[in-house]
Amino acid sequence: MVSTVTTDEGDDRVPPTIEWHGGRVRMIDQRRLPGELVMLEAATVEELCDAIRDLAIRGAPALGVAGAMGMALAAETGLDLDAAAAAICATRPTAVNLAWGVARVRQAADPVAEAEAIAREDVARNRRLGAHGAGLLPQDGRVLTHCNAGGLACAGYGTALGVIRAAHEQGRAPTVWVDETRPVLQGSRLTAWELDRLGIPATLVADGMAAGLMGAGEVDCVVVGADRIAANGDVANKVGTYGLAVLAAYHHLPFYVAAPTSTVDLACPSGAAIPIEQRPAEEVTTLAGHRIAPEGMAVDNRAFDVTPAALVTAVVTEEGVARPPYAESLAGLVGRASGRRPAAGP
Amino acid sequence: MVSTVTTDEGDDRVPPTIEWHGGRVRMIDQRRLPGELVMLEAATVEELCDAIRDLAIRGAPALGVAGAMGMALAAETGLDLDAAAAAICATRPTAVNLAWGVARVRQAADPVAEAEAIAREDVARNRRLGAHGAGLLPQDGRVLTHCNAGGLACAGYGTALGVIRAAHEQGRAPTVWVDETRPVLQGSRLTAWELDRLGIPATLVADGMAAGLMGAGEVDCVVVGADRIAANGDVANKVGTYGLAVLAAYHHLPFYVAAPTSTVDLACPSGAAIPIEQRPAEEVTTLAGHRIAPEGMAVDNRAFDVTPAALVTAVVTEEGVARPPYAESLAGLVGRASGRRPAAGP
Repeated sequence: MVSTVTTDEGDDRVPPTIEWHGGRVRMIDQRRLPGELVMLEAATVEELCDAIRDLAIRGAPALGVAGAMGMALAAETGLDLDAAAAAICATRPTAVNLAWGVARVRQAADPVAEAEAIAREDVARNRRLGAHGAGLLPQDGRVLTHCNAGGLACAGYGTALGVIRAAHEQGRAPTVWVDETRPVLQGSRLTAWELDRLGIPATLVADGMAAGLMGAGEVDCVVVGADRIAANGDVANKVGTYGLAVLAAYHHLPFYVAAPTSTVDLACPSGAAIPIEQRPAEEVTTLAGHRIAPEGMAVDNRAFDVTPAALVTAVVTEEGVARPPYAESLAGLVGRASGRRPAAGP
Repeated sequence: MVSTVTTDEGDDRVPPTIEWHGGRVRMIDQRRLPGELVMLEAATVEELCDAIRDLAIRGAPALGVAGAMGMALAAETGLDLDAAAAAICATRPTAVNLAWGVARVRQAADPVAEAEAIAREDVARNRRLGAHGAGLLPQDGRVLTHCNAGGLACAGYGTALGVIRAAHEQGRAPTVWVDETRPVLQGSRLTAWELDRLGIPATLVADGMAAGLMGAGEVDCVVVGADRIAANGDVANKVGTYGLAVLAAYHHLPFYVAAPTSTVDLACPSGAAIPIEQRPAEEVTTLAGHRIAPEGMAVDNRAFDVTPAALVTAVVTEEGVARPPYAESLAGLVGRASGRRPAAGP
């Protein structure tokens, strides 16, 4: 696996999170942020699976692209496609986009072209999503977000951060409370870094401070991404999201989920059917090689939780904003997205 | 300031958190846990103030003892007592126990003897507190706690952990969910360490997981300490506590606060009057010298939040269990404690 240091790639201010590059999958190595902006290249499906498992690349829409590009790698390197698909999908169980990206490339005549199309579509989708969501944020809105649902979680632009970014571009002047998001610190390492580069005012807080901010009237709404949305509107997202949804409801604040329709799993009836990944204990007990808990301490490190649909004010997708009842509204938006896809044509 | 490494000091399994030792204040250096059990000695008020500010010693009841011993140091070293009292009280604004310990020694004929009495009383008080609280925990209860309100937060035995410890000693077999408690990680570094040494089964989780645990029916109650309790029952405690109280109410779980009556500030009418300490940004942006957020990132690091009395099921003190309405019940218990103090005698 080859790493190359890169510098700022220009006006988008963040280089492509993931792209097909000379027969390899080229990604920002997100484990190295915010200290270093380093690119990582996977030349084989095995290398790509390692990068996914170890969170060099993460975020549901980005995993969709990674899954697609993994199948392109499999096709290019002459691997058994069934085995490759199974290996890729087994890396992370919660985000449904991974399986979605794998399935799209499996059905395609030209795997590399299809994977590249998925990456391009992802950015375009997120821009549409941002445009639909921006109007939900009040002028000078103080938005709280959790984890990273930015350009780094996608091929580019972002979902939750895409909404904030679109509002910023429209002059709505949002400011952002960034939950640091333990244990992997995607908020402090990735979201803070992205907002800084985008010039959007942001303040970092420990996860436990969100409630106090809401209680003090310093938050206007919550916007988060999603790893899987069940047909009934239940949302699996980074651990801590469910708590924020309860707190938002208690403080009468809107709680928005921003995700492309590829994150909606109509085959999954409710949150109870979403597999929740248990991650290694070391994510909680060590940091940068430094031990922060006693040796042998028992740890529960579920990476995701499920927010029931009843706590979700709206789901923002590239096809529009879904409101309750979600069983109808989400199915409608997913149907509209399928109608738009070239692959669904004659 | 002298540091000496010590080993396990026997049947209490944790050495005294703070004690008067050969004309100095000897403390466990809590910054070094769980990696190393190292004692720190302060020979001057200035050294003690540094130790308090830098969290070598922390926890409201322990700060009461530290304030008392600081005044003993001032008296022994011939300092101006008004200046010493002001310097000690300025180190940490939220915990009322600091000023309480300072005031008690100021009024005493023998400052060292009074400071040592306060430390002894603290342990005895916490044992009584634990006995009052243990009965609140169900058999095999799954208790969630936040931050560290253990022996390390007191002269010994603990308040919230004292309740759990007493229940354990009574054979109620509690198990504990330990919030890691960012940013200073008192949960993973201190509470996990104490419970491990006490042989009480515990599992460490990131702060964001508490909601999911409650939603999954894996928590029976929450028990936390307090840094200051207002006359109306509002509770200032480590940031994140308020969120747990809201989550407990939402999930119909009891939310208990365990604190000695010295933590009740009858002069403070409500939580709005409690000063909330803003701690350095570096607690959030760096860990063990490793940077975990972009350079120059804005940070809000309020160390405490306020839980309104309406969310508190009961306050457990050494004089008994206070229930709403707290204005009456807390005043009654504080009065009973004053009646018990030798200093109030003839």
